[in-house]
Amino acid sequence: MNVRVHVRVIPRSGLLDPQGQAIAHALAALGFPGVADVRVGKAIELTVDAVSTAAAEASVRSMCERLLANPVTEDFILEAEPA
Amino acid sequence: MNVRVHVRVIPRSGLLDPQGQAIAHALAALGFPGVADVRVGKAIELTVDAVSTAAAEASVRSMCERLLANPVTEDFILEAEPA
Repeated sequence: MNVRVHVRVIPRSGLLDPQGQAIAHALAALGFPGVADVRVGKAIELTVDAVSTAAAEASVRSMCERLLANPVTEDFILEAEPA
Repeated sequence: MNVRVHVRVIPRSGLLDPQGQAIAHALAALGFPGVADVRVGKAIELTVDAVSTAAAEASVRSMCERLLANPVTEDFILEAEPA
């Protein structure tokens, strides 16, 4: 079965995120008040051919650990749904 | 109330996504078969002070239209949860 997996790779909290700070400042300048704690990372979507949704998630978790995320500086969150 | 909003900004389907193609090739080279249709975009997380989750979502939708996404080349998906 084909499973579509959505991955969010986000800088770990506590680490500096200059891109997030830039967006927070730009939003304030555009007149959006009350925005805080902006973090910017990568959104990756991929279709995996696997026997089950759980198997696809396990496979993508391994991809994140080996390629898609930097385990020292980034956290990743997965969501899988049948494609 | 504080609402944490997760935004995924993804290149529109049909548009070339060289970063996604590079990841697809790298995953195949690492020995992950059966991966297709990789798209790479931005993941943005922000905390918004709003009267309700729906109001926070509406506010972030406006932020996406004005700053966070390029409406010609990118789609965005929002998910909001009470922080």
